[in-house]
Amino acid sequence: MRVEIWSDIACPWCYIGKARFEQGLATFAHRDAVEVVHRSFELDPDRPKGDTAPVIDMLARKYGRTVEEARAMEQHVAENARAEGLGYRTEGRDHGNTFDIHRLLHLARARGRQDELLTLAYRANFAEERSVFDPEVLLALAVEAGLDEAEARAVLADEDAYADAVRADEREAAELGATGVPFFVLDRRYGVSGGQPAEVFAQALEQAWGDRAPLTAVTSVTSDGDSCGPDGCEVPQVKGDV
Amino acid sequence: MRVEIWSDIACPWCYIGKARFEQGLATFAHRDAVEVVHRSFELDPDRPKGDTAPVIDMLARKYGRTVEEARAMEQHVAENARAEGLGYRTEGRDHGNTFDIHRLLHLARARGRQDELLTLAYRANFAEERSVFDPEVLLALAVEAGLDEAEARAVLADEDAYADAVRADEREAAELGATGVPFFVLDRRYGVSGGQPAEVFAQALEQAWGDRAPLTAVTSVTSDGDSCGPDGCEVPQVKGDV
Repeated sequence: MRVEIWSDIACPWCYIGKARFEQGLATFAHRDAVEVVHRSFELDPDRPKGDTAPVIDMLARKYGRTVEEARAMEQHVAENARAEGLGYRTEGRDHGNTFDIHRLLHLARARGRQDELLTLAYRANFAEERSVFDPEVLLALAVEAGLDEAEARAVLADEDAYADAVRADEREAAELGATGVPFFVLDRRYGVSGGQPAEVFAQALEQAWGDRAPLTAVTSVTSDGDSCGPDGCEVPQVKGDV
Repeated sequence: MRVEIWSDIACPWCYIGKARFEQGLATFAHRDAVEVVHRSFELDPDRPKGDTAPVIDMLARKYGRTVEEARAMEQHVAENARAEGLGYRTEGRDHGNTFDIHRLLHLARARGRQDELLTLAYRANFAEERSVFDPEVLLALAVEAGLDEAEARAVLADEDAYADAVRADEREAAELGATGVPFFVLDRRYGVSGGQPAEVFAQALEQAWGDRAPLTAVTSVTSDGDSCGPDGCEVPQVKGDV
């Protein structure tokens, strides 16, 4: 079974939802048969690269709140994060364009290091004093995640590298009906929206596992589809004696 | 969309079917949205490692044919391979246990090099004078495919490395109803059995694409599933004034 998780590194409920999903997955009997793929979703795709601002100010402006109220909002999120055992700093964090992080996460996926990089990037953004909008920090995270430094640097330097992959993920999210993140899709049949409690993820996994449907066969009317099995391959009509 | 292809490196119709699938995929308008995963299926799992035998002798024994008839069978397969532009040698090829190759293909998948390794392994086995049952040849293929030599060597030396992944693929093939290979599964909804003509694969891709079903939502009755979207994150009830 495959679970695809659309998220943005700048989204605190994605950070928290990932932990809750992993708790749900840990209780699932068939967890070893579950493959997790992280997909791209930008919360602020039109924001110019390099244009970062403190999260508290952004929240106050976006919701028309005072700075004190914005701090209380962050405090609420922080309590949810800490309840899942996650670090969360409510001050000094920036908000910005996450396109480069998503491109790097696609490189990481191609090299089998995606979950490692995402975990490190979330931690850097939400729990540590490291800005994921600084290319040198991103590069350091890539290396910590096990990526080749030269390859990661080349991807960061080339704005086209994995850009189509990020855009394709975002188109798919829209096609699947996602308007926000985190957005979880199980075998392209079940969807879970938001950072739900671990039990909801456990239930979704059970449900998707339980009603796996039989495959519909697509065949040719003119060909028998030669194949091989434990008893041998299709035996061609040799001398007409088969 | 995801296409999973179960196959064995020792299966000529898998080698041919892969080429035909790729031709079908090349004509598919949404080919950039298709991800291909290769999965393990052993034709001869009980064969002891290191026990190899010439393919012609195996064919003659398995089907109760003369060596001449076995040669004609291979000739028939070779004609099919060459019709797809693939090299195929009808003499001097061995048959044996493919478990180690499958384990290595799983490492390659984790490192984003699976298709490269599979393509090289097929070519070595069917078109070149290189035995994929020789660990040193396998190691050389891994390096040619872009894998790290030390890592590939460690996986080959450790019989448990990726062994569970191979077995899991084989269990899934059985659950999905595959009795032979190649076996193609599109988004876990459509199945194509055998090395069908390219048109059949093109048709299967169209069919699977055309009737992608809407997701079934799994939700909690007690939680609203906090999330973030382009317009912001869920706003907690601060001071009751939202």
